[in-house]
Amino acid sequence: MSTEKVEIFDTTLRDGEQVPGCKLNTAQKLKIAARLDELGVDVIEAGFPVSSPGDFQSVYEISKLAKNAAVCGLTRAVKKDIEVAAEALKYAKKPRIHTGIGTSDSHIKYKFNSTREEIIVRGVAAVKHAKNFVDDVEFYAEDAGRTDNEFLARVCTEMIKAGATVLNIPDTTGYCLPDEYGRKIKYLKDNVKDIDKVRISCHCHNDLGLATANAIAGVQNGARQIECTINGIGERAGNTALEEVVMILRQHPTLNLNTNIDPKFLFDTSCMVSREMGMFVQPNKAIVGANAFAHSSGIHQDGVIKNRETYEIIDPAEVGVTESAIVLTARSGRAALAYKAKKMGYNLTKLQLDEVYAEFLNYADARRCVEDHDIHEIMEISERKIRAIA
Amino acid sequence: MSTEKVEIFDTTLRDGEQVPGCKLNTAQKLKIAARLDELGVDVIEAGFPVSSPGDFQSVYEISKLAKNAAVCGLTRAVKKDIEVAAEALKYAKKPRIHTGIGTSDSHIKYKFNSTREEIIVRGVAAVKHAKNFVDDVEFYAEDAGRTDNEFLARVCTEMIKAGATVLNIPDTTGYCLPDEYGRKIKYLKDNVKDIDKVRISCHCHNDLGLATANAIAGVQNGARQIECTINGIGERAGNTALEEVVMILRQHPTLNLNTNIDPKFLFDTSCMVSREMGMFVQPNKAIVGANAFAHSSGIHQDGVIKNRETYEIIDPAEVGVTESAIVLTARSGRAALAYKAKKMGYNLTKLQLDEVYAEFLNYADARRCVEDHDIHEIMEISERKIRAIA
Repeated sequence: MSTEKVEIFDTTLRDGEQVPGCKLNTAQKLKIAARLDELGVDVIEAGFPVSSPGDFQSVYEISKLAKNAAVCGLTRAVKKDIEVAAEALKYAKKPRIHTGIGTSDSHIKYKFNSTREEIIVRGVAAVKHAKNFVDDVEFYAEDAGRTDNEFLARVCTEMIKAGATVLNIPDTTGYCLPDEYGRKIKYLKDNVKDIDKVRISCHCHNDLGLATANAIAGVQNGARQIECTINGIGERAGNTALEEVVMILRQHPTLNLNTNIDPKFLFDTSCMVSREMGMFVQPNKAIVGANAFAHSSGIHQDGVIKNRETYEIIDPAEVGVTESAIVLTARSGRAALAYKAKKMGYNLTKLQLDEVYAEFLNYADARRCVEDHDIHEIMEISERKIRAIA
Repeated sequence: MSTEKVEIFDTTLRDGEQVPGCKLNTAQKLKIAARLDELGVDVIEAGFPVSSPGDFQSVYEISKLAKNAAVCGLTRAVKKDIEVAAEALKYAKKPRIHTGIGTSDSHIKYKFNSTREEIIVRGVAAVKHAKNFVDDVEFYAEDAGRTDNEFLARVCTEMIKAGATVLNIPDTTGYCLPDEYGRKIKYLKDNVKDIDKVRISCHCHNDLGLATANAIAGVQNGARQIECTINGIGERAGNTALEEVVMILRQHPTLNLNTNIDPKFLFDTSCMVSREMGMFVQPNKAIVGANAFAHSSGIHQDGVIKNRETYEIIDPAEVGVTESAIVLTARSGRAALAYKAKKMGYNLTKLQLDEVYAEFLNYADARRCVEDHDIHEIMEISERKIRAIA
């Protein structure tokens, strides 16, 4: 069975940037966009052109810069938004307009004070208007996660008729469970006319910690685009993390799905986005956190030393991390200590190791982390003790 | 349909603490354990007693302290480990010994240089030995995520016969997809003799960003214990996050599953663990991150102001966050600006708002974040301009 491609739609510069205190200027956005292009993303969502002069400028400049990726601008289902986006995308080799409207009853009632029928009319008008400027029009059904599936299928059918090329099914509030989101995508695959002529896209939020799992459930059920951000950044608890979905597809070849991403740039891209946004990732962030490949417990260290595959399924080098650091703590066992000591030039006999290990544990209980200079000190202390006994 | 209880097994002080540079001393562990007891966790895994004198002491002291939670000590399938754990748990009201061994072919071959049959013999001996000291014995089948289901079912059957009360099915390397992990649990429910007499436990790692989703898939398929840590901390990319699984079950009443956790302590407990471990959570961390309830984009702010439910599914107060902060940036719309200005004492007409908003956008494009004192300045500038025109 040949593998199918999942397109990676990066929205680091649009949804990802909707973070209090982390606004990027145009120069920073251009720098990140150039890297995303190099990383191999299929689409760069560069901004929401009508929202501010800065956003317009960024989309305009990124359109000129992108060599491989399509460039996308967000709009509401509003004529002027679409016209401004088209203008901003003027120089893009592959321009895409991303328009849409809320489809859940909660959005229809409280946000638009409207009706289901009127929402479809407004959506169709937006897609048709966007088609006047570009071929590639993506429609988002905002709050699709809480939209009744039958109505959502009708919305999708109408948007395909109007000319949409991509249907974005956002779980806007991060509410769905993976099996539920997967069933929603499957329902659309089974019930929307001409669904195979367009691409279904997953846009998931992380409010319950499920953004990555939901996107994967989506592609397992027929979606072929994932909207995501570097480091999973974005409003509130953020979006699906690009690095996570890419590595999940790589680590699970039986899914028969691949992306165009070159994983060796993942770690470096993550660092660039953190730096530029002043938005750190926690040490235990999957794939790109400082500890993602670090082992501190004795059992695990022993296992890793015997065979990397015992505890690590990803070779750190694959994502651009040069070495899987072994850090010693009170959880580290004899094997880890002996391994580290050997790397530092100490070849210990079993008896010596017993003595040194006892000393090491005293040391490790008193300190948070045992570093190289501590090891030298431990060796000296142990040596003196051994000599004193002798 | 009445709801069933999922037990929360907190391993913040054991697996969670296996983080380079984040070792806690006994006083810190006691402080956190007291809070976990108050939070309502069912089991506190307090440490790995044989691993170091500090760990032994912590388990010993936490056993005396816990009022409601069971206290658990980790061991390998090794006699001495079990005896030391039993000693450490001596004063626990509800002591549990957690013993086990690797069951995947990779672990059997590379870690133990053993055979499947011998692994079962060693596991059975460990469970039986633990039963000499305590009634409540949990068995872990390390690397169950990569263990052949048929063999895993045999292991489980034998451990139940030997007296295990809880069967822990760890996805040690964080490799499983949610549907795959869910099927594994279902396979055990369907194929292990007397499985309904024991509790199946999910212990998931976050290497691919799926630890929370996998645990949820586990309980959807019949598991009734989740092993997790505050903030999802732990070795490498960490463990299932306690706050995430608890809130998922609360937000999805149709699952008919509940826990004993009092959510109003979640935010404060998260802060305590971060502080004591010197291990921060990223701003976009689900449930407990600084931005989890913050809205900066115009569209979203407008929606939240109209109806909180439009974008927030969790009331921040429910998890102990007193207010959902509205932060203004260049992504903020007129409604958010007017709302904030009104809160600060400025009642703007529509025309005034147009003027102030234009000024606000210049301001916001130049700054990362518009704070209260900036708003006052924007109002002054706008007022001067309006006067100059008049």
